[in-house]
Amino acid sequence: MISVVILGAGNVATHLFRGFSLAENVSVTQWYSRNLTTVEQYKNEVDITDDLSDLKVADVYIIAVSDDAVAKLSSKLEFENRMVVHTSGSVGIYDLDKKHNRGVFYPLQSFTKGAAMDFANVPICIETVDKKSYPLLKTLAKNLGSPVQKVNSDQRRVLHLAAVFVNNFTNQLYRIGHEITESEGAEFDMLKPLIVETAKKIEDLSPYRAQTGPAKRHDKKTIKKHLKQLDDNNHHKAVYELLTKSIQKTHGRKKL
Amino acid sequence: MISVVILGAGNVATHLFRGFSLAENVSVTQWYSRNLTTVEQYKNEVDITDDLSDLKVADVYIIAVSDDAVAKLSSKLEFENRMVVHTSGSVGIYDLDKKHNRGVFYPLQSFTKGAAMDFANVPICIETVDKKSYPLLKTLAKNLGSPVQKVNSDQRRVLHLAAVFVNNFTNQLYRIGHEITESEGAEFDMLKPLIVETAKKIEDLSPYRAQTGPAKRHDKKTIKKHLKQLDDNNHHKAVYELLTKSIQKTHGRKKL
Ligand SMILES: NC(=O)c1ccc[n+]([C@@H]2O[C@H](COP(=O)([O-])OP(=O)(O)OC[C@H]3O[C@@H](n4cnc5c(N)ncnc54)[C@H](OP(=O)(O)O)[C@@H]3O)[C@@H](O)[C@H]2O)c1
Ligand SMILES: NC(=O)c1ccc[n+]([C@@H]2O[C@H](COP(=O)([O-])OP(=O)(O)OC[C@H]3O[C@@H](n4cnc5c(N)ncnc54)[C@H](OP(=O)(O)O)[C@@H]3O)[C@@H](O)[C@H]2O)c1
Repeated sequence: MISVVILGAGNVATHLFRGFSLAENVSVTQWYSRNLTTVEQYKNEVDITDDLSDLKVADVYIIAVSDDAVAKLSSKLEFENRMVVHTSGSVGIYDLDKKHNRGVFYPLQSFTKGAAMDFANVPICIETVDKKSYPLLKTLAKNLGSPVQKVNSDQRRVLHLAAVFVNNFTNQLYRIGHEITESEGAEFDMLKPLIVETAKKIEDLSPYRAQTGPAKRHDKKTIKKHLKQLDDNNHHKAVYELLTKSIQKTHGRKKL
Repeated sequence: MISVVILGAGNVATHLFRGFSLAENVSVTQWYSRNLTTVEQYKNEVDITDDLSDLKVADVYIIAVSDDAVAKLSSKLEFENRMVVHTSGSVGIYDLDKKHNRGVFYPLQSFTKGAAMDFANVPICIETVDKKSYPLLKTLAKNLGSPVQKVNSDQRRVLHLAAVFVNNFTNQLYRIGHEITESEGAEFDMLKPLIVETAKKIEDLSPYRAQTGPAKRHDKKTIKKHLKQLDDNNHHKAVYELLTKSIQKTHGRKKL
């Protein structure tokens, strides 16, 4: 049985609490939040506290607070030589106070408190300063039902950056699709099956091979028509032009 | 029973043939391809031809050839007053020869010949010059198991443009994610669950509400770090900068 203390009460902390509660070989010993009201509703399921000097002994302490608060919170923990991990894609492992046995337990997904999440779809990226601690974190992730990957700090930073492209930026393209359709009385809902299909397609095919459309075909006539349609929105036009150029850079010149 | 002749033998024509073959109340009377070898493998299932003067009588003729070839092919059909539709998102309905009873049967999905496609995930956008013909095309689409929508030419053009954003451009963001991760020895595969989740999230939430991340939070520190990571690739950097700006334009200034 692995005992865990969760610190923080945001999106990630809440999902981890739920995930560990379902796990057979993990028990959540305590849940710390600086603001007790945020965890009050769980007080019958777990010991809650807002007092760092009151923390119980556990195998792993998981700091799931805002990136900027990770380092300071780790230094305020009043014990030494215990396993302390954070859950951030961009905070360094050495930002944790060196009195601890340090690690990273980064879940590569987009969490929101309200929406359900199956941990089978949450790859956990693990890093440890002391390599002897890796198996413990691996077992912890396996107990969530998550795929696990050993990932060093450089790789983690790069995954986090790539996640911005495939998650935040992709979502903004959906938003532009929404703006374009609704402005002409068309229904954005009609695009949803295409959106899901586009995401699923790359499960078997590389994004390189999955590419289609006027940019890749260097179909100048259609591109020109589209730019004309976007004439009254310079901003959407700039996105269209840059991503068309990007596709053409990736796929090279049209063969004649 | 609705009888159909399919013209063309590319991605869309092939999927339509498969779809109609499974439908209870549709029969494919004939399949035309200018190049007979492309449909030869189906000759035991359907009458095939490469001769336009040999076309049989049918309720609907579906022209599923390259956009540029639609108009000309429709004018070469040697009959009049029969229902003739094309399947394009960007070709006008009046580009079909006016001797026909004209319509559009535009499947809003991304087809590739090899990959299976469930028509339940293919919204069909229908337009007819003569509104009395709408029910016939609607029944045809319903027989595929597809959702159906009445869509005029302006709306169709706008859906086609929006599809470029949510399909081609999104796929290019996946490609950039691929380039970024692999260049640092990280695994692109780790991002796949996030990619699927991003697409699924907007089934219940608008893209506006689904947005998260450093751009929306105006998290200057992280944005600066990311731009530094992209320093040796001006091209990825330009995409990062423009889409960050785009998100901030959508979501306005940070509240202080
Ligand atoms: N959300 C995601 O999709 C996601 C995915 C992967 C990794 N992560 C990482 O996971 C961590 C948590 O993210 P999140 O989305 O769960 O954040 P969040 O929902 O914004 O929650 C942040 C939590 O940190 C607490 N907090 C902030 N400053 C604190 C301080 N000085 N002392 C103690 N607690 C403090 C907040 O408490 P109050 O409620 O009292 O303000 C809140 O409970 C971050 O490192 C993030 O990078 C997030
Ligand atoms: N693919 C999609 O995802 C998709 C989605 C929605 C709508 N559409 C629309 O559906 C239509 C067909 O697209 P597709 O992807 O199926 O195209 P495709 O795979 O490139 O196939 C084009 C077909 O048109 C034939 N063709 C070209 N020029 C011709 C001509 N002058 N006379 C007779 N046949 C000719 C080709 O014959 P050869 O094999 O002999 O060259 C081929 O069979 C287009 O209007 C397209 O905009 C496509």
